[in-house]
Amino acid sequence: MYLPVVAKILGVLLMLFSILANLPSVLVSWIYRDGEITSFLYAGLITFLVGFAMWLMTCRANKEMRTRDGFLIVTLFWTVLSTFGALPFWISPDVPLDLTDAIFESFSGLTTTGATVITGLDDLPKSILFYRQQLQWLGGMGIVALAVAVLPMLGIGGMQLYRAESPGPVKNDNLVPRLKETAKALWYIYLGLTVACALAYWAAGMSLFDAICHSFTTVAIGGFSTHDSSMAYFNSDVINMIAVLFMFVAGINFALHFTAWQRRSFIQYLKDPETRFYTGILGLVAAFTILVLYFTDTYNAKDSLVHGLFQTVSVATTTGYATANFDSWPLALPYLLIYSSIIGACAGSTGGGMKVIRILLIIKQGFREVKRLIHPNAIISVKLGRDLVPDRIIESVWGFFAVYVLVYLALLIVLLAMDIDVVTAFSAVGACLNNLGPGLEGVAANYGDLADPAKWVLCLAMLLGRLEIFTLLVLLMPMFWRR
Amino acid sequence: MYLPVVAKILGVLLMLFSILANLPSVLVSWIYRDGEITSFLYAGLITFLVGFAMWLMTCRANKEMRTRDGFLIVTLFWTVLSTFGALPFWISPDVPLDLTDAIFESFSGLTTTGATVITGLDDLPKSILFYRQQLQWLGGMGIVALAVAVLPMLGIGGMQLYRAESPGPVKNDNLVPRLKETAKALWYIYLGLTVACALAYWAAGMSLFDAICHSFTTVAIGGFSTHDSSMAYFNSDVINMIAVLFMFVAGINFALHFTAWQRRSFIQYLKDPETRFYTGILGLVAAFTILVLYFTDTYNAKDSLVHGLFQTVSVATTTGYATANFDSWPLALPYLLIYSSIIGACAGSTGGGMKVIRILLIIKQGFREVKRLIHPNAIISVKLGRDLVPDRIIESVWGFFAVYVLVYLALLIVLLAMDIDVVTAFSAVGACLNNLGPGLEGVAANYGDLADPAKWVLCLAMLLGRLEIFTLLVLLMPMFWRR
Ligand SMILES: [K+]
Ligand SMILES: [K+]
Repeated sequence: MYLPVVAKILGVLLMLFSILANLPSVLVSWIYRDGEITSFLYAGLITFLVGFAMWLMTCRANKEMRTRDGFLIVTLFWTVLSTFGALPFWISPDVPLDLTDAIFESFSGLTTTGATVITGLDDLPKSILFYRQQLQWLGGMGIVALAVAVLPMLGIGGMQLYRAESPGPVKNDNLVPRLKETAKALWYIYLGLTVACALAYWAAGMSLFDAICHSFTTVAIGGFSTHDSSMAYFNSDVINMIAVLFMFVAGINFALHFTAWQRRSFIQYLKDPETRFYTGILGLVAAFTILVLYFTDTYNAKDSLVHGLFQTVSVATTTGYATANFDSWPLALPYLLIYSSIIGACAGSTGGGMKVIRILLIIKQGFREVKRLIHPNAIISVKLGRDLVPDRIIESVWGFFAVYVLVYLALLIVLLAMDIDVVTAFSAVGACLNNLGPGLEGVAANYGDLADPAKWVLCLAMLLGRLEIFTLLVLLMPMFWRR
Repeated sequence: MYLPVVAKILGVLLMLFSILANLPSVLVSWIYRDGEITSFLYAGLITFLVGFAMWLMTCRANKEMRTRDGFLIVTLFWTVLSTFGALPFWISPDVPLDLTDAIFESFSGLTTTGATVITGLDDLPKSILFYRQQLQWLGGMGIVALAVAVLPMLGIGGMQLYRAESPGPVKNDNLVPRLKETAKALWYIYLGLTVACALAYWAAGMSLFDAICHSFTTVAIGGFSTHDSSMAYFNSDVINMIAVLFMFVAGINFALHFTAWQRRSFIQYLKDPETRFYTGILGLVAAFTILVLYFTDTYNAKDSLVHGLFQTVSVATTTGYATANFDSWPLALPYLLIYSSIIGACAGSTGGGMKVIRILLIIKQGFREVKRLIHPNAIISVKLGRDLVPDRIIESVWGFFAVYVLVYLALLIVLLAMDIDVVTAFSAVGACLNNLGPGLEGVAANYGDLADPAKWVLCLAMLLGRLEIFTLLVLLMPMFWRR
């Protein structure tokens, strides 16, 4: 560990972030004349100066960065940026958030969780709304780079599989090798999807402002909206279906998008076992949800279809937009949807949850165990498509699953000890750890009623979810800090 | 699969069970003149005749039994015996149970779960009470044989580890090799513990009847009582501490008891990593519980100590006796205790839960994964005491953990879909799957208020827990039924 180098990188990131996050909002504020220009200028200036100071003090440090330092940099990247991202919420006189709430909202934004403590979104200054949406978009950019390039380098994350030495469905050499270029290539796709999504929303009747704002949080699988009633505000089946399409696409591995784009070949998607399984799960859950909604007379046929499909895709991809209050749906549907958010989106996407590939491997390995009982001496291997999955990868998937469950149970009991009811606690932990956003009951729409300590715990949950838990766990090991 | 052989074995077991289960109760009924003799005679006769008929039709089948048939026999053993075990509850005019309730009570007895649908225990005929307690004792006998001898033969269960080819803490050749003799040796220990427990209870002031009845369900980690208020009825610290001692001892691996007894060496316990970890967990949870109870002014110092220790040991070993309504304890203590029942007792004991050894291995493997991230190229092995744990064992532990979590979530959502509230559903699934007994809220003391379908689901949960899930899963694979 060579801390000056870490501090130097962080300083540069902060300077970059101060401009990327605040300058567009200054522009928006100037366009709408909503009087928030100073808030963003102050926030940007403070962030820039802190970053500059860090850089100035450490710019002479140029020791080689080791892979291991990555754990600390990634963790600090999200924590420090989320903290400074809270500044506009805290500074602006028009946003009634104290420091805890401002930080919660900012964490929720940059981790693309989408849990909010704000009510009365519709009355907020446009530039603040824009800033909030853009936080998720920037977070999504970070996640794409993190999931596809950085975490696999550290040996963490569902994308690991694709980097294994055995031939995986997307081979390592298909990605532009160096981190920077990989990230750039993926960001072009990310940007392209965002523009397409914004244009589609606009064409379907959203205002240009809302179209841009919602394209940010659709492609980032973030779920923040500029309206308290979320997507229900627009009351348009066309807009809902556009959202479904783009949420679905954003939930697919961006490395796969890249390959498909590079080869101009749609068949890449059909050949990918994770994408197939992802589509299958979404289809099954949506079909079940729609049928239950219809046969329990919750909605008429058309609304059952629209709400069932929309909410399934929204929750299962961990976006978290709402067209209906699914928490009051019958027959344990709310829990079914929370379950599907635990599965989450594909590895290498902007979505959260455990990631489809891990669930797929756990199921395959579970079947292998049962088969082994029937034929104790047979050698049974786990395959993904036509490729053998090395035991080492399967072990790391088990490890993730166990740690995920333990962290879930630990966070749950901490919230329960704060006298939060079980439904609220269970769903809040799930919604934050899976970077989903909305939960059930006490946190169905809004996290504002929770006590401050609970909000801090949930910030930790969002961070754990976003950094695939292990990044943070590593930092807790004394072994990590030894030379 | 050669079904006649399976039917033949089952027939013999039924005949044996008809006598073992019903004859002692006939005697008790005769002593107390409580008018239940005919109930038990009828029940015994029906069971015997069915068993005899099965045997008669298949006695000529004497094809060699294969290991694989064991899955079916074990599953049928518990299912069929539990069904016939329900007869006295159903026949007796003094027990107000319909068929579902009778079967639930019988499953709960033979699986040593201890969940009850009966209220007004204190007013029931003595022989019925005795029968109920004895069901758990017989169940415990079956479990000891199952866990130590049968399941490892099938490749299932926490005891597997002790049968691995690598030198384990308790070596295979320490146990009398053949199944029958192993079982007999363990049953002597089981019987010895029961007698010691009964004498201790009696000496501490229980009536002889209550002493015998409660020794049955203490050593079986069953938790049925002859009083609605369970152990609280006796209101005696001495009795409570005797119960704590024997629950603790019954929660230790019986194979280890056997080794320790054979070698007359107490040090065997201290050398066993599972027993050490088991003691450590109990100590930690008890200490935390006692401190919370005291500092939240829930009880005075002495009562905090007694109730805290008793409920921790009772719930964590999955016995389920009650001296206090722990479901109303503060600061998430009820959930902490339910969590500790998920860990459960040691493999090879009469207790339930996931078994301490599995949790120990999962934690060790979790640490290995984190260490591997820090030193990607180091070869890090998992050790238990001084012995290496083979990867194959670790894989089966992961497999169990994943399947356990998935089954838990599946049963939970089924109960939620039946409109049962989350606390009740969550704790009922836990209490039945871990063979614990009492849950929280709607099932804190009694399962009588649940609808019939829910009771059937929970019977399945008890069976899944008792048969370590995989025994049943194997039967669901088409592969199993192929020749
Ligand atoms: K989200
Ligand atoms: K029990």
